[in-house]
Amino acid sequence: MTDLYELTMADAYFREGMTEPATFELWVRHLAAERNFLLAAGLEDALDFLEDLRFDERAIAYLETLDRFSTGFLDHLRDLRFEGDVWAVPEATVVFAAEPILRVTAPLIQAQILETFLLNAVGLQTLIASKAARVHIAAAGHDFVDFGARRSHGADAALKGARAAYIAGASATSLVAAGFHYGIPVAGTMAHSYVLAHDDERAAFDAFARAFPNDAVLLIDTYDTVEGARIVAEIAPRLGEEGITVSAVRLDSGDLAALAREVRHVLDTAGLAAIRILASGGLDEHRITELLAAGAPIDGFGVGTSMMTSSDAPSLDVIYKLVHDSAGPVMKTSPGKANLPGIKQVFRKGDGDVIALEDEPIEGRPLLTQVVAGGRRTRTSPALASIRDSAIAAIDALPTELRRLDGPAEPPWRVDRSTRLQTLADELSSQH
Amino acid sequence: MTDLYELTMADAYFREGMTEPATFELWVRHLAAERNFLLAAGLEDALDFLEDLRFDERAIAYLETLDRFSTGFLDHLRDLRFEGDVWAVPEATVVFAAEPILRVTAPLIQAQILETFLLNAVGLQTLIASKAARVHIAAAGHDFVDFGARRSHGADAALKGARAAYIAGASATSLVAAGFHYGIPVAGTMAHSYVLAHDDERAAFDAFARAFPNDAVLLIDTYDTVEGARIVAEIAPRLGEEGITVSAVRLDSGDLAALAREVRHVLDTAGLAAIRILASGGLDEHRITELLAAGAPIDGFGVGTSMMTSSDAPSLDVIYKLVHDSAGPVMKTSPGKANLPGIKQVFRKGDGDVIALEDEPIEGRPLLTQVVAGGRRTRTSPALASIRDSAIAAIDALPTELRRLDGPAEPPWRVDRSTRLQTLADELSSQH
Repeated sequence: MTDLYELTMADAYFREGMTEPATFELWVRHLAAERNFLLAAGLEDALDFLEDLRFDERAIAYLETLDRFSTGFLDHLRDLRFEGDVWAVPEATVVFAAEPILRVTAPLIQAQILETFLLNAVGLQTLIASKAARVHIAAAGHDFVDFGARRSHGADAALKGARAAYIAGASATSLVAAGFHYGIPVAGTMAHSYVLAHDDERAAFDAFARAFPNDAVLLIDTYDTVEGARIVAEIAPRLGEEGITVSAVRLDSGDLAALAREVRHVLDTAGLAAIRILASGGLDEHRITELLAAGAPIDGFGVGTSMMTSSDAPSLDVIYKLVHDSAGPVMKTSPGKANLPGIKQVFRKGDGDVIALEDEPIEGRPLLTQVVAGGRRTRTSPALASIRDSAIAAIDALPTELRRLDGPAEPPWRVDRSTRLQTLADELSSQH
Repeated sequence: MTDLYELTMADAYFREGMTEPATFELWVRHLAAERNFLLAAGLEDALDFLEDLRFDERAIAYLETLDRFSTGFLDHLRDLRFEGDVWAVPEATVVFAAEPILRVTAPLIQAQILETFLLNAVGLQTLIASKAARVHIAAAGHDFVDFGARRSHGADAALKGARAAYIAGASATSLVAAGFHYGIPVAGTMAHSYVLAHDDERAAFDAFARAFPNDAVLLIDTYDTVEGARIVAEIAPRLGEEGITVSAVRLDSGDLAALAREVRHVLDTAGLAAIRILASGGLDEHRITELLAAGAPIDGFGVGTSMMTSSDAPSLDVIYKLVHDSAGPVMKTSPGKANLPGIKQVFRKGDGDVIALEDEPIEGRPLLTQVVAGGRRTRTSPALASIRDSAIAAIDALPTELRRLDGPAEPPWRVDRSTRLQTLADELSSQH
């Protein structure tokens, strides 16, 4: 899982004897206009990859077929293990453009070939967590569940996206694999096919409730939502007498606000105030905001495609750049793509961040901490539940303006550069 | 890799003894405004999944912990194998909204639990192939290479996306894993970090060309693109005397059209007309169209984020619905989400398609063919190269209007419903 040019460059480094340590940093160049903050995630995946980094014989044999690499280099790959240091912001940290999320210091070849995977892994989970954080804000304390596995970009995105959404506040996921791998609570109701496979809704609802007598959730929009609610109102009390509980109904189409009100009325009139109303179907943070603003009596949301593809901003401008090597700090100066040189740290205070060189005595809390030393993790990975608690606390503590969902924060979070960093950048820039 | 509700419904079916065969079809409900056609892909992944479908003891043990499923059902899952039939349009077939891409007929439980994966797998590759087909159209015979692994949504999307882009006309991928798994040609140049890791561009270019004497591609925009080209113009002739060939330069930032012209001039003046110019950096089908329309002397394109996330339309409205069961054809009538009932076939003629019931005598070529019978593939999988040839032929044969990249085709491709199908839909709809 690396780009060919990483290996090509690595071979050139190998032939040139360039084995000194170098430092690369990973950050997001610009935030999409639709994002006022990012929620960092994906670090655990990145660390697993570093620890497992191996080129097995099949991989070496394939690389040989490319007729491109030196034998010495392929031998070097055979024995290659990650031996470097990693500093990173903890998962669930709020970050902004230009702030290093992760930093690798390792022999040049090792640090170089990690680029593709680190960008992919940290990029994916940060992308989805940042989108899900917006859904969390919109849901305003209501439950929301990840329904996105079917529309995620592949199985890996479904699984890791479920993790990222859970970190950012989703109460559960529909994806069983995510429950299996991460212990995330799984949730689900029924599909239209279940109703269609029965003679009518009444038969389907009755059979489903009997199969899951403690917490049946019935999907009531296969034909006509209000009629579906009337059928629930008719059968739920009788089922209740048998000790069978219908816990909720789900609406998946039509005018959700109006239908939720009608359904609520039908259920309440039948003495079924305890049955919750769940809504799904093309929801995102904006639709949820509208529904709640309209007073729709919806208790929980299923959110799929928009959250799990971050559909309004489906990629992060995430990059991984050499910032320091044996000759000192470096930077590229390509127009529009220049980066800040040197090994950096981010210091956070109540009113803004300062990006500085790592050894500067700057006021504030440093965001990057060491997580790998000499190729080994320096700390036990935090439990997913505690990462999630941190994330929710961080999102809920954001200034109101950053929590805006309908446009850019004015002012945005303040991110300054230290004088020493700016001076260094100016110096290096003027040399070219 | 299934949603909880698939298993929940399956358990209910199991308890109800509903083991008869049922037919589900998979199709895209609506095309995004940015798409005039889709290129079907992902079938081979879907078939692999069907063949490998197993619930191992770890999976069963996890499901037991959910305290939700009947023991009988879990025993049923332990022994479950896919035993059904699958019909599908071949990969690389052009398809449109509402046309079945894949059809599963199997015992209800088996057919139901496949939903999540089939949507995910066919959705992903169809999404990326359809976007890459647009890049192929824009590139107008120029090479384009997939550079997207770093921004794809996870490792699976990077790998399968590389396959989908290759099918749709990409000449190569940067992702080594895609070369390894699929035999796709891999390509790559150097990154800015390589230049930065050397004292200057001259030293970097010289070292890199010596390491890859047959086909070095030099990245010349780390500091100043035209200055980079001058350095190449200076060193390439001397390297040539040693038998070392610089095959191309790559531009990755700035005004690519203007810079390509300047670079071409610098190289041609130095007698280096054979050095090709490659461009990358935020490219998509629209930028490529503009660059070529402006006469930019660019020989090949690296296309990453926009293609591999289908960024202008990052999801497909792909669904998988029960259309026929032991009681006959079924349909849901939810507002805005009604579907066509019955087991269907798509017939293609020169001027349009007809969606009909499978046994109707309709003129035209039927698109769906049987690929699995009784759980086993009925044919050897086509070679990837031949799928790619079919795709390129299909894209290149599309009517001009469908190949438009700047807006909806007027008229769009004609997709009719047969009279019998429409009559059936009306009948079933009126029953509710």
